[in-house]
Amino acid sequence: MKIGIAGAGALGSRFGYMLSEAGYDVTLIDMWDEHIAAIRENGLIIDWEGEERVARLPIFYPHELEGTFDLVCCFTKAMGLDAMLSAIEHTISENTSLLCLLNGIGHRDTILKHVPVSNFIIGNTMWTAGLTGPGHAHLIGSGSVSLENVGEGEAAKARAIEVARLLSDAGLNAQYSADVKYTTYRKAALNGVVNTMCTLLECNMASFGATSSAEPILQQIVNEFADVAAHEGVELDRDEVMANVRTTFPADTIGKHYPSMYQDLVRNNRRTEVDYINGAISRKGKQYGVPTPFCDLVTLLVHAKEEIRDAA
Amino acid sequence: MKIGIAGAGALGSRFGYMLSEAGYDVTLIDMWDEHIAAIRENGLIIDWEGEERVARLPIFYPHELEGTFDLVCCFTKAMGLDAMLSAIEHTISENTSLLCLLNGIGHRDTILKHVPVSNFIIGNTMWTAGLTGPGHAHLIGSGSVSLENVGEGEAAKARAIEVARLLSDAGLNAQYSADVKYTTYRKAALNGVVNTMCTLLECNMASFGATSSAEPILQQIVNEFADVAAHEGVELDRDEVMANVRTTFPADTIGKHYPSMYQDLVRNNRRTEVDYINGAISRKGKQYGVPTPFCDLVTLLVHAKEEIRDAA
Repeated sequence: MKIGIAGAGALGSRFGYMLSEAGYDVTLIDMWDEHIAAIRENGLIIDWEGEERVARLPIFYPHELEGTFDLVCCFTKAMGLDAMLSAIEHTISENTSLLCLLNGIGHRDTILKHVPVSNFIIGNTMWTAGLTGPGHAHLIGSGSVSLENVGEGEAAKARAIEVARLLSDAGLNAQYSADVKYTTYRKAALNGVVNTMCTLLECNMASFGATSSAEPILQQIVNEFADVAAHEGVELDRDEVMANVRTTFPADTIGKHYPSMYQDLVRNNRRTEVDYINGAISRKGKQYGVPTPFCDLVTLLVHAKEEIRDAA
Repeated sequence: MKIGIAGAGALGSRFGYMLSEAGYDVTLIDMWDEHIAAIRENGLIIDWEGEERVARLPIFYPHELEGTFDLVCCFTKAMGLDAMLSAIEHTISENTSLLCLLNGIGHRDTILKHVPVSNFIIGNTMWTAGLTGPGHAHLIGSGSVSLENVGEGEAAKARAIEVARLLSDAGLNAQYSADVKYTTYRKAALNGVVNTMCTLLECNMASFGATSSAEPILQQIVNEFADVAAHEGVELDRDEVMANVRTTFPADTIGKHYPSMYQDLVRNNRRTEVDYINGAISRKGKQYGVPTPFCDLVTLLVHAKEEIRDAA
């Protein structure tokens, strides 16, 4: 079983390492020069729950790859997915399964440009990971994966179940689920409030949650996500999704955390994934004739902030 | 002619000084201890186009005032108007004219709690002024005033024309105009884009104007102001108002300016007047059944930012 990890960042490093440890033939694929050079020279240095491990994993630029993969797992940034899939197109055969665990909404269309729907498996994950520098991963805590087939029929379903079994073999705690679309929208709605608000207001989740504006903002944004999801056959439980957003506010649990979008833009001056969160709702809203004014303005404001900061 | 200047900040100091120089009996009214103490001890020290002048103007706390005024000119912050008028109620007789030149929308209701509509004169001004510290005003450049009666009938109109003449006597370049409501909405729409965006994004007007988000944001916000104004009989020329907003963007003219709301919140950590700009549109929109989602979210975000910064 030949597995390609398309995007060997934090989460790609975790999945690549754990699958390799389970005996699979894993190839990391990336385009970041320093990261590739470091892993080729020293291996992938992993802080595994405080213990240093070194993984000698092969890592390649897309153009260096030969042959095809049985499974490609995508872990690029959302904005990099299309370019990565174009670059590794020669490694994807009609039998290659493609697993997408990216955060956010709107990756289906990108992926279906590159693989047939019958081979496409989509999901989301609660695993976390960090990169502390080129060639250095920080892997702590536990997680899980939910995935399902995008194409219809028993063969597509069997393919997804097979991938879930393979990931679980490697300790990645994966389950086949028919609710992936629901959980994707649910998670995106949370990110669509918390990530964007903390980025625009430059604060942690507790500080935002403590403002008198938090409640009306989260209600309107969750309603916009739910209105769009309903047009795709997903009926979000609005009250439950709102309650789920509120769980991020208490300062004595996770409220002091600064979400990933804040870290991308405010801390590291990188462009955000807002086009795959509120921006996706805004695009789909126009497509379905559903008003999404808060998502529209949030997306415009985050992009304005990226441009003003000249984010890379 | 006994004139009270309710709020002796930057603009109140300018009007008070110029009216006093023209021979009117002017009383400054304020509640800021250091400012009052400084003016009582040293007079109002004015940087008048680079020349230092000292104006020995009486300044009082509201509770110290005796007798009634013929004319009260309001120059408080929007949030302070109601409290000021309550505090000086004993100085307002049935013959007192009340002139309001405050920026923004929504002061009518506040003022009509305290004076009869027949005595109420409303307007706007292009005069500017600055305070460099307690008792120190910085008065540079020229300006004008437009004003009109709020109450109907010839007597109300005559009262407004009389006040315009009196201000012009003092060099304040005032004109009676039947377009005050139009120009107030036009100016508020500009502030509703430029002030709030530069405050949320922490940038000057040129930086905001250069983003690809500027155009869709200004179009939607101007349309919301125009939709609400139409319910009050004011038909804004939307294209002209949008063009007026765009005049603030060029970096080689005024674009490098940071608007007053930015200075209030970002620089001085003071609460903003957003409730009298986008917030007024939001309130009136609900009242008239007009959707104003961008103004709603902008108001919520500015308030969230005030709360997070613990603005005074």
